[in-house]
Amino acid sequence: MRDVTSAPWNCDKGTIETSPDVLSGVSLPAAVIFEGSLAHNLEWMQRFATDHGARLAPHGKTTMTPALFQRQLDAGAWGITLATAPQCRAAFAHGVERLLMANQLVGEANMAIIAELIEAGADFYCVVDSVANVRHLGRYFAARGLRLQVLIELGVDGGRCGCRDQDEIMALAEMVDSEQALVLAGLEGYEGVVHGDNPEAGIRAYAWHLVEAAQALDHDGLIEVPAPLITASGSAWYDLIAEVFHEAHLGEHFVPVLRPGCYVVHDHGIYRLAQRGVLRRRPDLERGLEPALEVFAQVQSLPEPGLAVIALGKRDIGFDQLPQPLRRYREGGSADRVLSVAGWEVTKLMDQHAFVRLPEEASEAGNGEIRIGDIVAFGASHPCLTFDKWRHICLADERLNVIEVMTTCF
Amino acid sequence: MRDVTSAPWNCDKGTIETSPDVLSGVSLPAAVIFEGSLAHNLEWMQRFATDHGARLAPHGKTTMTPALFQRQLDAGAWGITLATAPQCRAAFAHGVERLLMANQLVGEANMAIIAELIEAGADFYCVVDSVANVRHLGRYFAARGLRLQVLIELGVDGGRCGCRDQDEIMALAEMVDSEQALVLAGLEGYEGVVHGDNPEAGIRAYAWHLVEAAQALDHDGLIEVPAPLITASGSAWYDLIAEVFHEAHLGEHFVPVLRPGCYVVHDHGIYRLAQRGVLRRRPDLERGLEPALEVFAQVQSLPEPGLAVIALGKRDIGFDQLPQPLRRYREGGSADRVLSVAGWEVTKLMDQHAFVRLPEEASEAGNGEIRIGDIVAFGASHPCLTFDKWRHICLADERLNVIEVMTTCF
Repeated sequence: MRDVTSAPWNCDKGTIETSPDVLSGVSLPAAVIFEGSLAHNLEWMQRFATDHGARLAPHGKTTMTPALFQRQLDAGAWGITLATAPQCRAAFAHGVERLLMANQLVGEANMAIIAELIEAGADFYCVVDSVANVRHLGRYFAARGLRLQVLIELGVDGGRCGCRDQDEIMALAEMVDSEQALVLAGLEGYEGVVHGDNPEAGIRAYAWHLVEAAQALDHDGLIEVPAPLITASGSAWYDLIAEVFHEAHLGEHFVPVLRPGCYVVHDHGIYRLAQRGVLRRRPDLERGLEPALEVFAQVQSLPEPGLAVIALGKRDIGFDQLPQPLRRYREGGSADRVLSVAGWEVTKLMDQHAFVRLPEEASEAGNGEIRIGDIVAFGASHPCLTFDKWRHICLADERLNVIEVMTTCF
Repeated sequence: MRDVTSAPWNCDKGTIETSPDVLSGVSLPAAVIFEGSLAHNLEWMQRFATDHGARLAPHGKTTMTPALFQRQLDAGAWGITLATAPQCRAAFAHGVERLLMANQLVGEANMAIIAELIEAGADFYCVVDSVANVRHLGRYFAARGLRLQVLIELGVDGGRCGCRDQDEIMALAEMVDSEQALVLAGLEGYEGVVHGDNPEAGIRAYAWHLVEAAQALDHDGLIEVPAPLITASGSAWYDLIAEVFHEAHLGEHFVPVLRPGCYVVHDHGIYRLAQRGVLRRRPDLERGLEPALEVFAQVQSLPEPGLAVIALGKRDIGFDQLPQPLRRYREGGSADRVLSVAGWEVTKLMDQHAFVRLPEEASEAGNGEIRIGDIVAFGASHPCLTFDKWRHICLADERLNVIEVMTTCF
């Protein structure tokens, strides 16, 4: 690798340098998190969990950003949830000691990663839902001379992973009990796969099913730890899960753990919609979460009236929904001078380009006339699939000064 | 960062270690390129270009994998095409000296990246399609005391970037001519945005339009280099572009440059379909490209009859089309023992999970019965959005021995 500059030649699609000017020196497109909204969200969700007698283990797969894990822990999180063994390894390497892998641990190469973490002192939990996996884990960790804490997963018919009924859970718990290397540490579920005409009622019923299953395991003496976990919740229905756990007085024996991930930066699409549902159900929850993540990109071409091509593509932003233009700035200008994007609509996203349909007035001469090089802030949905496009994320203040550059670990 | 193992604690979602066994030691999911098909594709496309009197500048944005850039150059490529300034920087840092940025260079932070590359000796080209951008580039590079080689982009009505007609091209060329810091080095186009009832005819017409525009620029003495470039082509219609450039005898003065990217690993979806079109038009082209990229993942849960949940998600594989199950292996088994995936269908892809609908016989007891931990090879479409999910890619031989681990630079 040749050395042609003092800047680091790391493998990174963006050059990010802090600067006193508005995103000046930042190669665009770039992902930007606003510090104020981030701090608000961190504090808001931690307080929500505490107020409901629950611990918070934010799902780290959303961001895979150790600097955010640290902020979540500093705000009071009990641990970090992850989805895969390599994610757990990355989090532990950056100082996260309690890891809740809300997923089955499959494959000996992945088991080897987790064995190393346990040997190094990690407080690790994963989930099981089958005899075959329990036997394999039991054999593997026994051979390594280690004990593995597992949670039984309760699923739903037509859903994703997880035991489908109480009988299956009890039989699997007996199987875990028979494996010397495995420690049954509680019950896990994910309400995001509950469907039906009345999801709210379905999710409440599912949460009560979790409670009953956990109590039955406990009643039969199958749980092998003094403070067993009961855990569920993504970022859309966490209020219902927290309420049921709270109403069931689970905190007296169990440790209820909530695991929302997207809350940390919220979004401009499906989670904003979901949040409206939370606040409708719970008007006592003030202010709510705030979208904190945006992707900034520049107008690259104005080839036809009514069409702007933006240097922003599927490589840069999630596309469960098309990105939403939020605001516009002139390159080199101030963050105070916000130009309009009224009537702008992203109509198509290619790998490296976005097509924006402009209203007629956008191309009229004048102060706010669109120009090549104009910087446009976009909102995205959902955050998980925006974070994973980036190796670095800018943390910025309200005036778009970059105050920290955070590294992701996908 | 704590040190708990001799293995590198890099930010990487997969542990990849070479091993004499079948993908043994590789944390799955993992992306795998088959060396034989890769070598075939490299040689095939290089020969295609040479046979048509054209140079090959493979689009590097597809893979952003310097080890593949090197193989493309070793096979005879004239340079590497890229889409953004940071991509150019990454390629140059890994030894690519001729960089064709088939995109507008917008934003001073991106101009600064390119200025550094030119200062370091890069042979760099980018495209222009507007007076505003030409003026900005002229001003910026003049201030840096550098000269920037630009190609005028020819677009199509209703397409993406690019001048829409000959008059616009000629006017823009005069503007480039008036900028001391800019050197007009040829013409660029991308036929992938040509639409209509008869795309084949439309693309041929577009290619001839490119030829005529290039010749007009040359005739008017507006091109400032002795061997100007004329360049187009993605991985779907490269045969038509190459034929028109060949028929026009452009090689006598111009340097015709083809820029397909996806060909290097081909795919199991849209490009396989496109390739059938190429071979139908050109039966003389023997054998054709071969899909070389697969993503391997394991069965994680079998929660209901007829349903397998695979540890493979949107974080791991492109999803323009749902992944296609290709083959199955038993974990720890041999690559020779291929198990059936007949009738398997991916019905849904979440961030970290794939849902597979199984035919009845898949869960019947027997030799090929599906088991938790079974390793499934998936084909994807398209490759660009599969590569960008990975920081490392395994290069494997036919027996699924990992022979090289390649790093990506997204």
